[in-house]
Amino acid sequence: MKALIIKQLNSLLEFSEAADPTAGKNEAIVSLRAAALNHRDLFITQGLYAGIKTPCALGSDGAGEWRGNRVLLYPALEWGNNPNFQGKNFRVLGMPENGCFAEQICIPRKNIFPVPDHLDWEQAAALPLAGLTAWRTLFSRCKLKKGEKVLITGIGGGVALTALQFAVATGADVFVSSGDAGKIERATVMGAKGGANYREEGWEKRLKQETGGFDVIIDSAGGDGFALFPALCNPGARVGFYGGSLGKVNGLSLQPLFWKQISLHGSTMGSPREFRAMLAFVQKHEIVPVVDSVFPLSEGAKAFKKMEQGKQFGKIVLSM
Amino acid sequence: MKALIIKQLNSLLEFSEAADPTAGKNEAIVSLRAAALNHRDLFITQGLYAGIKTPCALGSDGAGEWRGNRVLLYPALEWGNNPNFQGKNFRVLGMPENGCFAEQICIPRKNIFPVPDHLDWEQAAALPLAGLTAWRTLFSRCKLKKGEKVLITGIGGGVALTALQFAVATGADVFVSSGDAGKIERATVMGAKGGANYREEGWEKRLKQETGGFDVIIDSAGGDGFALFPALCNPGARVGFYGGSLGKVNGLSLQPLFWKQISLHGSTMGSPREFRAMLAFVQKHEIVPVVDSVFPLSEGAKAFKKMEQGKQFGKIVLSM
Repeated sequence: MKALIIKQLNSLLEFSEAADPTAGKNEAIVSLRAAALNHRDLFITQGLYAGIKTPCALGSDGAGEWRGNRVLLYPALEWGNNPNFQGKNFRVLGMPENGCFAEQICIPRKNIFPVPDHLDWEQAAALPLAGLTAWRTLFSRCKLKKGEKVLITGIGGGVALTALQFAVATGADVFVSSGDAGKIERATVMGAKGGANYREEGWEKRLKQETGGFDVIIDSAGGDGFALFPALCNPGARVGFYGGSLGKVNGLSLQPLFWKQISLHGSTMGSPREFRAMLAFVQKHEIVPVVDSVFPLSEGAKAFKKMEQGKQFGKIVLSM
Repeated sequence: MKALIIKQLNSLLEFSEAADPTAGKNEAIVSLRAAALNHRDLFITQGLYAGIKTPCALGSDGAGEWRGNRVLLYPALEWGNNPNFQGKNFRVLGMPENGCFAEQICIPRKNIFPVPDHLDWEQAAALPLAGLTAWRTLFSRCKLKKGEKVLITGIGGGVALTALQFAVATGADVFVSSGDAGKIERATVMGAKGGANYREEGWEKRLKQETGGFDVIIDSAGGDGFALFPALCNPGARVGFYGGSLGKVNGLSLQPLFWKQISLHGSTMGSPREFRAMLAFVQKHEIVPVVDSVFPLSEGAKAFKKMEQGKQFGKIVLSM
């Protein structure tokens, strides 16, 4: 089969021939039809990830055919027994095991779930990791409820957009932030009630004034901007975060956090049980993940270049 | 009656004559037998509190007699309807309303609770605010369970010591930190399994090695030391904090927080329902709050001087 392979640390992926996988007990060979990129894949090609093993086909998100069924894949292995956190043997799909940037994948059968009927291959591949991360952060961790006010920062990434869709479908009032006015505009079309450009001085004060404050904030940037959140929070608010791309948080004041009974919840991935609940929600509300662009698997290098530029709105997908 | 009164902003308390209170509808006049100091009282005398109103008798913690019954006081007014956070009209007892540093107090009847049988007046007065804060932080917010490992930082303060007692009674394995080896020693006598002196370089690494990590951390210091907690946390850990006396948090890394599914919970005070549950727990486990020292009400200034020095182990109590 053909696959996008990382051959050595810190190198680009190569589209090349790889051995066809063979299934062991309780495993399946899925013929992949589409896969989606995640920042994790980019970080691995940049050598910014612990324990990189080569050669390996990357890719955590995939959808394809198995025994005539349209299936997508729970994007991790061995969550473990505790619903609150992943166990010691937990791995994200795609490194160290071969992942979804390939024509075929060998995967435990329990990782296989039916594709919601309303999704095509590219949309299906765009869903698993982003949808699972958004689901756990919003619902399992931050207990978002109908009628609450939500701020989703850095709108445009896959998780942030899926969180926007989930929160809107829940009946929350959703606001977004971005450094790109066009992305805020597009989020508004998707149901956001408003937004703020964080490149403008005093954005957080205006947003507080406009909205009255937030019950839930979803963030993946961290950095010094994180210290603005306590003032933006309503009493009893929850801040969920699944990334920290802007680095460590400085200047975080605890007084508003304890006086307003605020919780900060770190969150990553999710359990198979959460994945199943997320898929049911997507099916029920006919949510369609946002696909930014589709590249053939053979042009994976171009897809990575696009992700590196950071201008995408939604998921970058590979098609087999 | 006699009372300890703050007469103007930023001034010491004066032991002086004040008008006897009179009860309105649904109110009671409690003859106070003992009251306890809290840092809040000290901050007010130092002018470090918003909206100081004078003249006023301070004091959030009190125990006394009402209609022949031994009673202690829920230390706040108007928590509000939401169990998750206090409402807009919430006030801590003792400023703006007259508090417990007086021979009598006028208080809503619903603030009155029976003193657990095993406590004397001074022990009873030492319980309310510290016990309520420890209760909410440990159980309502951090969901401490039997068998979990707990770190309580800055042992010696009233809340920290009560949290130690509650956690030990729950069957948790409790460790403490302090800058004073003598306080760690005393905490060990009270049931702590060990401790670390945070003035010693590398204390957190040794403590991690010794304990394997913590499921719950209780802190009221904040500051840069707070950034050490993510590394000390086990997967699924909860950090509860009810103060931030060392100032803003810098250098907080989000990666271990989200990867290990850690939650940081701000917490303050608690609802009347939590107060009732806390009293039942104290009664059941015959927990005796630690009283550092007792001063007559007339020598309140000495009691404040002692608190300012910060060498106490347990509550500083005034006796009427």
